[in-house]
Amino acid sequence: MAVWQDKIEGANATWMKNYAEGNSAGVGDMYTEDCRVMPPGADVVVGRKGTSEVFAGAMKAGVKSILLKSDEVGPLDANDNTAFERGHYIFYKEDGSVADQGKYVVVWKKQANGAVLMDVDIWNSNNST
Amino acid sequence: MAVWQDKIEGANATWMKNYAEGNSAGVGDMYTEDCRVMPPGADVVVGRKGTSEVFAGAMKAGVKSILLKSDEVGPLDANDNTAFERGHYIFYKEDGSVADQGKYVVVWKKQANGAVLMDVDIWNSNNST
Repeated sequence: MAVWQDKIEGANATWMKNYAEGNSAGVGDMYTEDCRVMPPGADVVVGRKGTSEVFAGAMKAGVKSILLKSDEVGPLDANDNTAFERGHYIFYKEDGSVADQGKYVVVWKKQANGAVLMDVDIWNSNNST
Repeated sequence: MAVWQDKIEGANATWMKNYAEGNSAGVGDMYTEDCRVMPPGADVVVGRKGTSEVFAGAMKAGVKSILLKSDEVGPLDANDNTAFERGHYIFYKEDGSVADQGKYVVVWKKQANGAVLMDVDIWNSNNST
């Protein structure tokens, strides 16, 4: 599991860097080509292009950076090609204040080159609206 | 995969029946003892008791029944002990109108007796608030 944990934390670090740089296409590249992304307030989004647009929308809405923090990683597959991650997030505004905080579950898929990509991503806020 | 799909759909049918009967403890029994349940508007809830309370709260808030509909079960390995499910839900009020609709991801764990229980459960609404 340590291998998965390291790979996931590495991928999350790249995800966060791409987001903070305003690189929504780079965020999309952290997902599988046929990813299923499940943002609050909308139906499932399939594929990298739509996923990039989800996060471009968050950038335009004033979320300057996103912190992803793993709480748990577990195997889903005896062949070790799939794992899930449970974690927490914080959305920060430009001034460093917190725009939102919540939690997420990601299903990760190992790629032929050994890298891991997000295949399913769902999250929700801890704040009642 | 058919085995997982059948087991999950069977467990979901029991979940829905328990909920519709107002049996929040029975809903809690569909989860592992140390489940991590992630409702919108609150932090992670750990364990069956807290999980029962989450759904007892939904019952009190006027959600009379819940439809769970699987869209995807993975990975493709029937011998595995863990699988994820992605699906959609509809919350119905007493008068049959829709209180909410959205989507979910569940991590399922196979038990020693062959039954499957929800180990991680996260969902969010398709409606913006």
